[in-house]
Amino acid sequence: MSLLVIGSVALDTIETPFGKVQETLGGSAVYFSCAASYFTDVSLVAVVGEDFPQKHLDILKKREIDTSGLTISPGNTFRWTGEYGFDLNEAKTIDTQLNVFEKFQPALNEKQKTKDFVFLANIDPDLQKSVLHQMQQPKFAASDTMNFWIERKNASLKSLLKNIDTLLINEAEVRQFGQEANIFKAARKILSWGPKSLIVKRGEYGSLTFHEHSIFSAPAYPLEMVFDPTGAGDSFAGGFMGFLAKSGKLNMENIKRAVVFGSVMASFAVETFSLERLANLDENKIFKRYRELHKMVCFEDFTD
Amino acid sequence: MSLLVIGSVALDTIETPFGKVQETLGGSAVYFSCAASYFTDVSLVAVVGEDFPQKHLDILKKREIDTSGLTISPGNTFRWTGEYGFDLNEAKTIDTQLNVFEKFQPALNEKQKTKDFVFLANIDPDLQKSVLHQMQQPKFAASDTMNFWIERKNASLKSLLKNIDTLLINEAEVRQFGQEANIFKAARKILSWGPKSLIVKRGEYGSLTFHEHSIFSAPAYPLEMVFDPTGAGDSFAGGFMGFLAKSGKLNMENIKRAVVFGSVMASFAVETFSLERLANLDENKIFKRYRELHKMVCFEDFTD
Repeated sequence: MSLLVIGSVALDTIETPFGKVQETLGGSAVYFSCAASYFTDVSLVAVVGEDFPQKHLDILKKREIDTSGLTISPGNTFRWTGEYGFDLNEAKTIDTQLNVFEKFQPALNEKQKTKDFVFLANIDPDLQKSVLHQMQQPKFAASDTMNFWIERKNASLKSLLKNIDTLLINEAEVRQFGQEANIFKAARKILSWGPKSLIVKRGEYGSLTFHEHSIFSAPAYPLEMVFDPTGAGDSFAGGFMGFLAKSGKLNMENIKRAVVFGSVMASFAVETFSLERLANLDENKIFKRYRELHKMVCFEDFTD
Repeated sequence: MSLLVIGSVALDTIETPFGKVQETLGGSAVYFSCAASYFTDVSLVAVVGEDFPQKHLDILKKREIDTSGLTISPGNTFRWTGEYGFDLNEAKTIDTQLNVFEKFQPALNEKQKTKDFVFLANIDPDLQKSVLHQMQQPKFAASDTMNFWIERKNASLKSLLKNIDTLLINEAEVRQFGQEANIFKAARKILSWGPKSLIVKRGEYGSLTFHEHSIFSAPAYPLEMVFDPTGAGDSFAGGFMGFLAKSGKLNMENIKRAVVFGSVMASFAVETFSLERLANLDENKIFKRYRELHKMVCFEDFTD
């Protein structure tokens, strides 16, 4: 089934303990659509400025991502500058220049409105709601958010939750949003506000998925070298939704598989800067890591 | 098969955000042997002072733990005072009184020397080595340690590793011992020093087990209320070794199961102070959590 993502396209300047890169291709919609493109057709709705380099567009086109929803507005592209220390779990933002992204008002065309699966990447929850209202009953809608919106637009975020299937947020945000130190209590509270499932991203510790009365725990793929964690969460979301959209089935068994593909795609994203690795994969490489994760967590139940 | 543990028996005074308890039964050998006692026969080698309360002994005897190796020495029992904040992953030590534990020199009797499985809880690595030398070729030996010994007795610890099967330590200690920020690199280095496997305890994030060329990731059992984390690691070790000793098989499939029983036993330990819950279980309760963890992590591999 077809998949739509609304989010950011950015020029990232990043420093990690292992290197530095300037104005490389980044943004939530970019990582998401690239990861999802291995599973299904993806269309992207986002905005860039007139300075956006053609070579970056070419990367997306090579992955056959539908960029017809990428508006080129007068002005400059959104820029983010960040750095990571040896604790790669946390980015330090050095500079943010919203530029054309500040006035981003996503308007869907008729084709985009009829997509079956939609991912609302981390933007203002009022914008996420406006996108959702434009859609004609998507089969599955998921959203991301961040501490900034949990603080500033709490009510708006809660009202969005009534209409989405899955919320993906990180561990600290779950505690903050649910106002509970215990993650399981916090998750239960957030689920009571509407979404059918909640995926808690825990960085190197993997993820916890809460769906109806089930919990699924998945590890991160083991990597001896994490080069740059930027885009891990959006690549996870892309693998997750890409697989779900491909299969179309929304039962727990399939959600589990989708989460594991999320882990796999995130692992490729963090091995290099930008999309260097994520944009150059094939099915064999992806399935290999999926099988390795299977071996890494499954054990026999002999107690019945 | 029979199981022997060498470690501490302590009187713990603990404060957590949920309550306070004074001079309750604690110590590594206590949590370990209580957790293991649901799986196999356990003998304990430790020392207490003349002040050690009979009621605490009764708890161990009720679990049919062989306490004939518990020496009562002139003086006072080892006392530990600690507190936890809402971040239950880290204990703050307020006071330590080693008392009779300071001169602890475990001497095994003929029966103890022939045990098949031995756990060397967190004590001076020179003492751990001396115990191991007294044993007559145990089938399986595992040990714990801590940052203090990694700093002060590094060479001694490394030489111990040549003769043990499994080292269990926490995540920060793996990084410290292996001198690598990346946990997989650190684990590989530690394994090169001798042990067949390494179990990395990650608190609420579960554990990673490295065995030959395999990695097994197990989550912590999901709890909405962690009351007191004291003893979690030793209870984990008790479940792990108790199950291994019971089954006697040391292949990867069995090690995986043993680790999951470790998670289960740790989860019971942290739900109350001391052994309140851990000493009052039955096979049904233990197997129920094992099955729940199975459901929580296993997923289908459909990619072959």
